Amino acid sequence: MALPIALTMGDPAGIGPELTRRVWSNLKASGRVFFWIGDPALLGANTPYREIRHPSEAASCFVDALPVLPLSCPEPVYSGCPSPGNAVTVIESIRKAVHYTLEGAASAVVTNPIAKHVLMASGFPHPGHTEFLAALCGATGQEVMMLACPELRVTLTSVHIPLKKAIDTLSTDRIVAVSRVTEASLRRDFGLPQPRLAVAGLNPHAGENGMMGGEEMRIIQPAVEALRREGMNVIGPMPPDTMFSAAARPRYDAAICLYHDQGLIPVKTLDMAGGVNITLGLPIIRTSPDHGTAFDIAVGPEETGKASISSLLSALAMAHDMALQRVMSDAQTS
Amino acid sequence: MALPIALTMGDPAGIGPELTRRVWSNLKASGRVFFWIGDPALLGANTPYREIRHPSEAASCFVDALPVLPLSCPEPVYSGCPSPGNAVTVIESIRKAVHYTLEGAASAVVTNPIAKHVLMASGFPHPGHTEFLAALCGATGQEVMMLACPELRVTLTSVHIPLKKAIDTLSTDRIVAVSRVTEASLRRDFGLPQPRLAVAGLNPHAGENGMMGGEEMRIIQPAVEALRREGMNVIGPMPPDTMFSAAARPRYDAAICLYHDQGLIPVKTLDMAGGVNITLGLPIIRTSPDHGTAFDIAVGPEETGKASISSLLSALAMAHDMALQRVMSDAQTS
Repeated sequence: MALPIALTMGDPAGIGPELTRRVWSNLKASGRVFFWIGDPALLGANTPYREIRHPSEAASCFVDALPVLPLSCPEPVYSGCPSPGNAVTVIESIRKAVHYTLEGAASAVVTNPIAKHVLMASGFPHPGHTEFLAALCGATGQEVMMLACPELRVTLTSVHIPLKKAIDTLSTDRIVAVSRVTEASLRRDFGLPQPRLAVAGLNPHAGENGMMGGEEMRIIQPAVEALRREGMNVIGPMPPDTMFSAAARPRYDAAICLYHDQGLIPVKTLDMAGGVNITLGLPIIRTSPDHGTAFDIAVGPEETGKASISSLLSALAMAHDMALQRVMSDAQTS
Repeated sequence: MALPIALTMGDPAGIGPELTRRVWSNLKASGRVFFWIGDPALLGANTPYREIRHPSEAASCFVDALPVLPLSCPEPVYSGCPSPGNAVTVIESIRKAVHYTLEGAASAVVTNPIAKHVLMASGFPHPGHTEFLAALCGATGQEVMMLACPELRVTLTSVHIPLKKAIDTLSTDRIVAVSRVTEASLRRDFGLPQPRLAVAGLNPHAGENGMMGGEEMRIIQPAVEALRREGMNVIGPMPPDTMFSAAARPRYDAAICLYHDQGLIPVKTLDMAGGVNITLGLPIIRTSPDHGTAFDIAVGPEETGKASISSLLSALAMAHDMALQRVMSDAQTS
């Protein structure tokens, strides 16, 4: 029996609680067991749930009731109106999810969306969700962001920094490091024995032999060559505009992208609703839906709003598949 | 009767001659009349063609034969092996197409692909096709590149320069100028009475209130405000990663993009084969297919290769529709 997935609460005033109810309804007969770490008061009267004390109790009730490891929000929750006073519970949910996954009681962490500015107002010191998870795992600085949809996987050498800074801080070492993490995960978590990477260029037409920018020759090409010397199957630097076309995508298993929007534009252009955010480089598997708290469309416990469950469903499915694959991969290599 | 479209030869060793034969076969019964300005020797024995002396002769023969304004390449043509010696004919074809369109004998210029490095080897002084066309029209510096597919239109504030330079040279004035040209063309050539523009941000999440870059507040927001003061319907700065999603695209008629790949990645991700390159800001209508000479798959006059005619077909259809719309728009405003 596969271990259950730990799903965090997310911001209680966002769409997380509603999505959680609806994905449980959708998945209860699927065998893709998860438990939610959150405040049962957010679930309302229409969702059967069962309070559990440990993840090991999740599987036996999942088909009949949403398993909940209970937390309690100290302040009243008004959908759409986040309160810094509840940040402590948001954070505790994440902490518990990582704890159970690290100790082997859960297979993966899937995170519901949080609002950074709400947590920061309560003194949260991390720049984002992912950095907090890395810190909880003792892996600060090793995290790599992957975004995946059925047609495309991308990983990023930088995330939430100004575009100019992404260019100025781009280095051969960083491209090599992100590529190594990506390749290792494609083997271990995606079951690809010979992963194929495509490293993006930075400039139009990948610089066209230096005529439109020198970073390809100075920084990116040396990274591609270093990776090839390690035996990796790598193409690049690829012209960024054509590498995500339907004809080009089948040539690689993941694209290594050199700034936030270079990777996120093609994924969200292809599949806004079903994209999954995956954090590589941590000891645990972590995925999340590719959207935010959406306070503007959040609804209370008895209502059904217009938020789409596609991305959270995809995040749970991806975490489930990655966890199974990792067990198989680890068994083969041990 | 609509005027015919002038189609240039393009590099004689590339896929242009083959595509020209095949699009004529595809369009001969469509009423979308064009004539080709090129060397008839490139057409082979299987394509009926008629040599004409003036564009006005094109319509009467189009259904039976490809109308050709004949030029002659001075050197032998070997498919796939471009020769700088034939650059003079490539250039003459472009010159004649612009001449006939400016004087009102043709409705639009559609250009087959050329290879810049081949022309440069023969002393061609322009950085590219588009700049040469602008010079021939006496409109140097006024050209704006649009890329369009059925789902999306984008225009660019900069084209073939390093990404870092695109950031460093970005200005409020440039965004305003490109937006004005785009809006005017959407009215005149696309028949949209109230064009809606979306100006992209530059940084992740459009800078998130300055936390991830200051260009939005310093440069882009002032441009959006200036355009609104002129009465334009403009949204932005938009988060670049989400603005091209299926849900967001219906909110605007064209996206103003701040660097080459920001605009070209989403179009080519959506539709590599059918994308059309359109030059706005010139006195003439000009479109081109969104691919290059493809010397690697070019074939001789008696053969059919694997090049796709989709983009050239789309370029001709777009030029035809824009020309008709422009006649109607000009009649309404005069």
